[in-house]
Amino acid sequence: MNIAVLGSGTIGKSWCALFLAAGHHVVAYDPDSAKKEGITDFIQASKSALRRLGYQSAGLIERFRFVQNPMDAVQGAELIQENAPERLGVKHQLFSEIEPYLDSQAVIHSSTSGITLEELQAGLSDIGRIIIAHPFNPPHLIPLVELFGNQETKPRVIESAREFYESLGKVPVELQKSVPGHIANRIQAVVWQEALHLAQEGVASLSDIDKAIANGPGLRWSIYGPNQLFSLAAGDRGLEGFIEHLGPSFQRWWSSAGRVEINSKTVDMVREQFKKDDKDISDMKIYRDQILVKILEAKIAMRDNGKPEEE
Amino acid sequence: MNIAVLGSGTIGKSWCALFLAAGHHVVAYDPDSAKKEGITDFIQASKSALRRLGYQSAGLIERFRFVQNPMDAVQGAELIQENAPERLGVKHQLFSEIEPYLDSQAVIHSSTSGITLEELQAGLSDIGRIIIAHPFNPPHLIPLVELFGNQETKPRVIESAREFYESLGKVPVELQKSVPGHIANRIQAVVWQEALHLAQEGVASLSDIDKAIANGPGLRWSIYGPNQLFSLAAGDRGLEGFIEHLGPSFQRWWSSAGRVEINSKTVDMVREQFKKDDKDISDMKIYRDQILVKILEAKIAMRDNGKPEEE
Repeated sequence: MNIAVLGSGTIGKSWCALFLAAGHHVVAYDPDSAKKEGITDFIQASKSALRRLGYQSAGLIERFRFVQNPMDAVQGAELIQENAPERLGVKHQLFSEIEPYLDSQAVIHSSTSGITLEELQAGLSDIGRIIIAHPFNPPHLIPLVELFGNQETKPRVIESAREFYESLGKVPVELQKSVPGHIANRIQAVVWQEALHLAQEGVASLSDIDKAIANGPGLRWSIYGPNQLFSLAAGDRGLEGFIEHLGPSFQRWWSSAGRVEINSKTVDMVREQFKKDDKDISDMKIYRDQILVKILEAKIAMRDNGKPEEE
Repeated sequence: MNIAVLGSGTIGKSWCALFLAAGHHVVAYDPDSAKKEGITDFIQASKSALRRLGYQSAGLIERFRFVQNPMDAVQGAELIQENAPERLGVKHQLFSEIEPYLDSQAVIHSSTSGITLEELQAGLSDIGRIIIAHPFNPPHLIPLVELFGNQETKPRVIESAREFYESLGKVPVELQKSVPGHIANRIQAVVWQEALHLAQEGVASLSDIDKAIANGPGLRWSIYGPNQLFSLAAGDRGLEGFIEHLGPSFQRWWSSAGRVEINSKTVDMVREQFKKDDKDISDMKIYRDQILVKILEAKIAMRDNGKPEEE
């Protein structure tokens, strides 16, 4: 497939690497010519991880082009993955530039995390051709893609998007209703809020709370979601049995969960309590991605061996 | 070390397997004689996983004894890990039975998730010898142990507990203040609340929300906690830079996060929306534990190779 990737920051370059790895032809657009090197470096750096995950074409740079004009990127493309800065004006300007050059069947998948589909549609004439397809960082490794289309969306656009991301080995989840932050960012938000709340209350430092999550519930959430995990914990009656048994405890924890405001007090606490790791940020990202690959490899191997799957 | 494990349900038998695996002598007490087989089966079943994680003594059943009288379990034990049912009366009764037989230096670590240390202390004469040491299921694999002692706790009891669990390869985190649900269960609670809320709002089914978590943020939380992850996402200014950049978005997500009540409406929704997996519960537990072992192996290997650590 011919794919145009518009905007080549953290998200855009990761999509480029993945689309190439899955055998597609990719044209990336960014107004900043310096981004070209950033993308090609990333394609190279992510090659071995993607090959380990079974992407035979990872690193096939000859299928990649970089352009500084969005019209050149979209012409002949069947799919446009849009990752422009998260400002509505910028995205509308981009849409007005590319729309006259789009193939009649071309669809736009926006990676936006914060702009609604209705707001995006307002910048196009043919509003049925755009959906939200929000990835999770780093997109070349994390399987989740959150999809959203509304009543204006053309038939089969969502279904084709689902098939497309599945063909990439991704796990698309379709939202039935627009909500700020989709699913995953909202879940992240409540976790962070309670972490900040517990630290503000003096229960533990932010670093210790991080340690508790990554060595406790976080380990299990990489395998199953909370409902599935809880359904394993209460015998034959599954999730309903769990609610009967532990509902009152959860009710108590919910009622004492905290609300946090982003203000100078919060920033001061973060400055005091979050022990900046003495490791390099890039080393930590490498560590994160190497463990991610190990987990994904383990899941793929168990699936291929006919062991129980996670979904 | 001689360790007494009181109460031999899910938590107790998992502690037995782990303590044995780390080379200790273990006497387990349970009033129900049928539990003996449950423990010995579990010690056998968990042997290969624990050996893969480097526990040379896993499965050394000759260092294990089962008794049906709590006094026989605690005599000569330096450490008592208490996992009796979560009812204060039951625990107090048990304490009154064992206290006369405890060595003067023996300490009690309670695995309780829902009873406060003050409540536990009320059942002992020597109240400085008991602390909370709350594991996370399954305890033989999940590293987190939440520790709590108060002003009555004897000097060095918490410090020795920390050293003990670290010697087992665990990751102890000490709470500075008593709070219902400690840290990890509270974090689980807010995640589940928002998952139930989103499902109630019709954004996605409970099964799809599970899928989003286990294929999205959950994968990252098995590696780093939220503060560390966010600090990687905003360049050199770390977590403070992240707050400046994304604080307003989080504020918006927090303000629309939902409150859920455990009532018949919630139970009905769970019944409708949570697609019970057609796999066997025991198969899903095996899958969960096998992936857990893979993740822990990967973390150990990277630590031993001098790669960046997660803590």
